[in-house]
Amino acid sequence: MTDHATPATNTVQLNLDEVRSLAISVLLKAGLSENQALPVAQTITDCERDGRQSHGLLRLPGCVMTIESANFNATAEPEISEPTPAVVRVDARFGYSLLAFERGLPLLEKKAKALGVAVLAINNCFHFSALWPEVERIARVGLASMAMTPSHAWVAPSGGTKPVLGTNPLAFGWPRVDTDPYVFDFATSAMARSDIAMAGLAGQELPDGCGLDAQGQPSNDPAAVLAGSMTTFGGHKGTALSTMIELLAGPLIGDMTSRVSMDFDAGERAAPCHGELIVAFDPALLGGDDPVTNQQRAEQLFLGFTDQGARLPSLNRYRTRAQNDSSGIKISRDLYDRITSLGSKRTIH
Amino acid sequence: MTDHATPATNTVQLNLDEVRSLAISVLLKAGLSENQALPVAQTITDCERDGRQSHGLLRLPGCVMTIESANFNATAEPEISEPTPAVVRVDARFGYSLLAFERGLPLLEKKAKALGVAVLAINNCFHFSALWPEVERIARVGLASMAMTPSHAWVAPSGGTKPVLGTNPLAFGWPRVDTDPYVFDFATSAMARSDIAMAGLAGQELPDGCGLDAQGQPSNDPAAVLAGSMTTFGGHKGTALSTMIELLAGPLIGDMTSRVSMDFDAGERAAPCHGELIVAFDPALLGGDDPVTNQQRAEQLFLGFTDQGARLPSLNRYRTRAQNDSSGIKISRDLYDRITSLGSKRTIH
Repeated sequence: MTDHATPATNTVQLNLDEVRSLAISVLLKAGLSENQALPVAQTITDCERDGRQSHGLLRLPGCVMTIESANFNATAEPEISEPTPAVVRVDARFGYSLLAFERGLPLLEKKAKALGVAVLAINNCFHFSALWPEVERIARVGLASMAMTPSHAWVAPSGGTKPVLGTNPLAFGWPRVDTDPYVFDFATSAMARSDIAMAGLAGQELPDGCGLDAQGQPSNDPAAVLAGSMTTFGGHKGTALSTMIELLAGPLIGDMTSRVSMDFDAGERAAPCHGELIVAFDPALLGGDDPVTNQQRAEQLFLGFTDQGARLPSLNRYRTRAQNDSSGIKISRDLYDRITSLGSKRTIH
Repeated sequence: MTDHATPATNTVQLNLDEVRSLAISVLLKAGLSENQALPVAQTITDCERDGRQSHGLLRLPGCVMTIESANFNATAEPEISEPTPAVVRVDARFGYSLLAFERGLPLLEKKAKALGVAVLAINNCFHFSALWPEVERIARVGLASMAMTPSHAWVAPSGGTKPVLGTNPLAFGWPRVDTDPYVFDFATSAMARSDIAMAGLAGQELPDGCGLDAQGQPSNDPAAVLAGSMTTFGGHKGTALSTMIELLAGPLIGDMTSRVSMDFDAGERAAPCHGELIVAFDPALLGGDDPVTNQQRAEQLFLGFTDQGARLPSLNRYRTRAQNDSSGIKISRDLYDRITSLGSKRTIH
């Protein structure tokens, strides 16, 4: 690990290999097994590469807190089963979701390409990171997919004032020919919880409609919303979508809802532990006999966005990726120092 | 068909059998085959029964316009194929979606209960009605499901000003033990197109955020929005969700996007013709070894809504159903007269 900071700057410049090495060293120091640590570090690196700092190195302090929490299994080896030819289940055994995803992915691909549709159900995983890296990976083997997870019950339903739902992200990936996949990934809460926390740290007010205080009144105060409840995006429709994610990635696959997951955490403030549902679709098997027309129609849809200057999800991310692949990234000296001092408890004692 | 109207009233009282008979007679008069007409009339009846007048008898004039349009096949018999053990494809052959759904449903159920997940892909169907009756039917045989379709390109993406997307509904159903299924169904446009049209007829302004005029400026004028573009619900997240529906119920299954469907219509103003995707999941196969806990967790989620007085989707509809099952429904004399005079062209000439 080379430190490229000069005394005159408040930032540290890292290339992507250095980001990965830094993340691995912190995770190993915290006691995470190498099998678990490698995919987590890779996702942190991918997020930094794509300019998604909120899911990058910034997450390492929270990772260490999770690894040290009572329910977490730092050396978990996922257990794979195949309940049916269309379903692969991976029990993460209370480790991170990412190793479970890595282990399940080849089977998901094989099943979807044999049957046209297949499900990867991950159970008992601690959630790490955004879901877009997963649906992008799936798209790169030629499959469309949806991915979803509950989280913790921080979000009130439309018309309510008490938290019941998680921030429940939904991600979607679509394979394109000769170009990067079309990918989106959004929280069904109006604002991401980490963004609310960051607004609080920066002394900023929240936009209208992001949350309620503990008395159930609309509030623009980040601290009040974090202590009260967040709201879903898009009113009753966003709330409905969020319930679908609770049910499909929870009870459907024999796992926890956001509320049950929060009880399970018992105030440790570890990452949410729950299930994840991924449904993969094979356009080659589902698309009939004219795949070229199918591809063209999808591309026309995308052109309908870019031709009028509307933002097509994931394009900005790929632009940032191209840039950071060569230039590397910068993080604040403060964050760098915080990260490098992490996880030393276990190695010192 | 008995006419219970008295000269002094402006409404006509009908029991549900009379609603069904009225719908069947209009559809048959318009030239629709009996096989096609029966499920359409049943869905119209179900919508009236549940207080969803916007998808009830009010739709009959539009049905007749669709039946008489150039692309529509009034005597279509759906063609079923099974590309894989997990996929049933039903080619509606340019008839209505509902007969295709009826024909595909038993196979979808069989496949989902064998494999845990299965897909019903309906192609070349003219869209009729809301999707909730379908996911409710699927839930009543014990399966969770999602259903989605494109429509016509009436909706501008977030950040754009020109229509690219359809109103693209998403419906979801979840089976509950000893009670009606949990069901939702929403358009991904901020407002349903029929509601915008009805606001126009009533001389009402639209709420903010429902659409743009032909110059791309936000507008509250229903006529300007119908001539310009509608917007998606929930900003860029609603837009992203809508693209997923375009792709999964369009190119993924070898069918049209909303824009292609609009071109196909060529100004006839028939109902949108396109594909429909239904994905069904079997909780019994996916849920692991503790189905009772799974059910309890789902019920706790629903209680989290009703305990705090938040609206749980579908509950109001079931209440209306219970009432209308015994009391029947009322429609305006004006609508009744318009309906009974429909479809006479083909029988007279």
